[in-house]
Amino acid sequence: MENCRAAYRLLNRSSRNLLDRRTNSKFFNSVRSSNSGVTYNFTQTSELFKDDVPYHKEIVSTRICSRGYDNGILASLPRNQGNGFRIHFRNLASTASTPARNHSFCMINSDDISYFKKILGEKGVVQEEEKLDDANTDWMRKYKGSSKLMLQPKSTQEVSQILEYCNSRCLAVVPQGGNTGLVGGSVPVFDEVIINVSSMNNILSFDKVSGILVCEAGCILENLISFLDNEGFIMPLDLGAKGSCQIGGNVSTNAGGLRLIRYGSLHGSVLGLEAVLANGTVLDMLGTLRKDNTGYDLKHLFIGSEGSLGVVTKVSILTPPKLSSVNLAFLACEDYNGCQKLLLEAKRKLGEILSAFEFLDISAMDLVLKHLDGLRDPLPSSKHNFYILIETTGSTESHDKEKLEAFLLQSIESGLLTDGVLAQDINQASAFWRIREGVPEALMKAGAVYKYDLSLPPEKMYDLVLEMRGRLGSVANVVAYGHLGDGNLHLNISTPQ
Amino acid sequence: MENCRAAYRLLNRSSRNLLDRRTNSKFFNSVRSSNSGVTYNFTQTSELFKDDVPYHKEIVSTRICSRGYDNGILASLPRNQGNGFRIHFRNLASTASTPARNHSFCMINSDDISYFKKILGEKGVVQEEEKLDDANTDWMRKYKGSSKLMLQPKSTQEVSQILEYCNSRCLAVVPQGGNTGLVGGSVPVFDEVIINVSSMNNILSFDKVSGILVCEAGCILENLISFLDNEGFIMPLDLGAKGSCQIGGNVSTNAGGLRLIRYGSLHGSVLGLEAVLANGTVLDMLGTLRKDNTGYDLKHLFIGSEGSLGVVTKVSILTPPKLSSVNLAFLACEDYNGCQKLLLEAKRKLGEILSAFEFLDISAMDLVLKHLDGLRDPLPSSKHNFYILIETTGSTESHDKEKLEAFLLQSIESGLLTDGVLAQDINQASAFWRIREGVPEALMKAGAVYKYDLSLPPEKMYDLVLEMRGRLGSVANVVAYGHLGDGNLHLNISTPQ
Repeated sequence: MENCRAAYRLLNRSSRNLLDRRTNSKFFNSVRSSNSGVTYNFTQTSELFKDDVPYHKEIVSTRICSRGYDNGILASLPRNQGNGFRIHFRNLASTASTPARNHSFCMINSDDISYFKKILGEKGVVQEEEKLDDANTDWMRKYKGSSKLMLQPKSTQEVSQILEYCNSRCLAVVPQGGNTGLVGGSVPVFDEVIINVSSMNNILSFDKVSGILVCEAGCILENLISFLDNEGFIMPLDLGAKGSCQIGGNVSTNAGGLRLIRYGSLHGSVLGLEAVLANGTVLDMLGTLRKDNTGYDLKHLFIGSEGSLGVVTKVSILTPPKLSSVNLAFLACEDYNGCQKLLLEAKRKLGEILSAFEFLDISAMDLVLKHLDGLRDPLPSSKHNFYILIETTGSTESHDKEKLEAFLLQSIESGLLTDGVLAQDINQASAFWRIREGVPEALMKAGAVYKYDLSLPPEKMYDLVLEMRGRLGSVANVVAYGHLGDGNLHLNISTPQ
Repeated sequence: MENCRAAYRLLNRSSRNLLDRRTNSKFFNSVRSSNSGVTYNFTQTSELFKDDVPYHKEIVSTRICSRGYDNGILASLPRNQGNGFRIHFRNLASTASTPARNHSFCMINSDDISYFKKILGEKGVVQEEEKLDDANTDWMRKYKGSSKLMLQPKSTQEVSQILEYCNSRCLAVVPQGGNTGLVGGSVPVFDEVIINVSSMNNILSFDKVSGILVCEAGCILENLISFLDNEGFIMPLDLGAKGSCQIGGNVSTNAGGLRLIRYGSLHGSVLGLEAVLANGTVLDMLGTLRKDNTGYDLKHLFIGSEGSLGVVTKVSILTPPKLSSVNLAFLACEDYNGCQKLLLEAKRKLGEILSAFEFLDISAMDLVLKHLDGLRDPLPSSKHNFYILIETTGSTESHDKEKLEAFLLQSIESGLLTDGVLAQDINQASAFWRIREGVPEALMKAGAVYKYDLSLPPEKMYDLVLEMRGRLGSVANVVAYGHLGDGNLHLNISTPQ
């Protein structure tokens, strides 16, 4: 019964605020998922897009981020603060408030350090400034905290002890995984204690019959991919940051990535989780069953909750068998409407083997070719407005090639495609992927960039880009790319400074 | 912040009870999902399986059902009852308590009837005994309630008005969809008001580009399948009860069904929900985006919560494109180990086209052939211990046939398969499916049956069946079938009386 009542409370209390926010276009604020838990809370509003933005409130959704721990978060929520929280948020416009440190949080003292050394050992307690520098800085090098302490627990028990202690001492914390986030969500704002789970990087079990992998939160995605590759399986998740991002952060941010079109979101793939709440309570939801309908499925609250409900410490995930045949095509379309039609055709004609459908516009392509070394245009004969990457993954090389070639031929004949090339080997395939995955890096090299990560119905997705270009004129370069197959647009406003 | 706190409360309060229950073998009680919301609450214990049952606590999971509204549920939770709830539960053993009506709930009076007629009209208020008979009886005809009133709202607004009123009057309710559940979860225990959503059966929208369907909760699954078929799409969910079960019930019970192996669970497919809470509050979580990471994803709490958190009124679901080639093979294996190896091989060799992997044991096959008219053994040359149904779904007939035939040939050569036949046309395919889907009906005709719906690691799944056979000896017939590909066993104990 207590479960039922607690759930009621959650639903009743959160229904108004949270759900309104979910569907309210006012709330598209800062943007791209971080790949580790973050310190933020929800923003109140963003003034950038006013009411006259021509998007229906139900069609726009994006990750909402703000920073500053005035709102109180995760561990060390100042108790009995009532409703008097000040709301701070990051905002692209100059109207953004500057967050101020909330003095309800305590400062770290030497007793704290001694305690942490006692439970983690000397090695698990990092205080040297140069070692803290990376952890204090986000991937985009836009945000910098001034944490004096990074803790590196090696077990769930240690995470629990840390959080229990920080909670009792009212010390602010920020959980951190690979720190690959593009919005600075995983870096401290002020002097939070960084809880870095990188040392929790063991693979705990893998069942070859069911394909179920159980591992610790600090496992780097690429290491999991390599491990599974040897076992004849793949991760259902792949993204550009795979070399550094960690699975705990992927789950905490509900990372989508390149394979969502084929394998769905982490809500479908993650079978179980272990997480530690702010007060140190360990929640064991680490099921390894394909179906588990017993009780409310609380793990889903943690998927995408960005570290705000707890630190994910272990993950159980369903992995698909590796299929032997992978093909990649780099294609060009003249208009966005053509891209959409191509998607629909690809779903039908390539059906079960379609594993990625990515797009970048001419601005993104130009940036990549200009700023990244060693890359060249796969379709150099002329410029195109849109570029599409189609990947297929199947079990029989000859079947897949036949399907893909027939699809491409038909698409060129019908005028949907203006040009295209099939990767002839793994090097060429890597080069094609490097173009798509290199856009964030190229943007960073091009100067200042404001990043948005938007979910939109595919048919309306590019309207927003055109609208932004119209509004900004020559002030900034509007660059768009992303997961067309999933309705996920990466919108970037790039300026030289 | 309130969201965050409420979520904390939910997690803290529920962690002990709910999560222990999730992984505690003591809690496998009554059994199969109903396909509509139910009145039950969690059981305390079942004495049937004592501590000496040789299954590790983490490997057994099953749906937990009990009935009787002493526990207070959905609408009309008796307020201020403190912790003094008596716990009643349904139990296979004779030690089960008999639930007693909780007198905190009020009886329906003529004012109530007048009120309901005012909001629903005469047609929406059903009081005739013969019309109530079906709604008072479960599909297995094992449980019978004595509700005097069934309400048939035609809109979310009406559901909200009903629940708000029932809550204020302390009237118990039971939400009902297709009433196809096999554990009686959707029938009243006593005199609850039945809220039947069958009249809410409109398809609200379908987007052919994204494949996203939005419909009301009372849509019959088979009607949705037919509708989508015309549009060139399929439901990601299919199950034997499709002719009667409704999508709201499917979602509320997190129905798995025959396609889970290919398209995953409803946690992956359901993009949005609308639900009405006990006090009449309407939660609009009806997103139609493939990715929506804004805020906590509360809809997942409703998926599989069996009506205990609210009445699902609308559903938004991602549907895959229909692929043109479907093939079905009916196969025989001599031992359970062989069935598992076959599954592993099928995942590798059939890869992307495998869409079902079902099994039934010889007891199930015997029952079907004995009790269902017009069915004959597809492999009549000899008896086999296990029968497997493999379905493939792909985009190119010739490719799929080639893959399937190569797989079957290899499996026979390697001795994994002892016999097998490919369906030559749609009639034969239907006859094969009828065998698998007809097991529940055959069991009912065979006499009394105790039904369990268990999730187990596939490699240990059949041990339980053998264990039960050993324990029960000649007292009862132990019949097993289910979704081998998903580790989902339908265990049935059948006795003539």
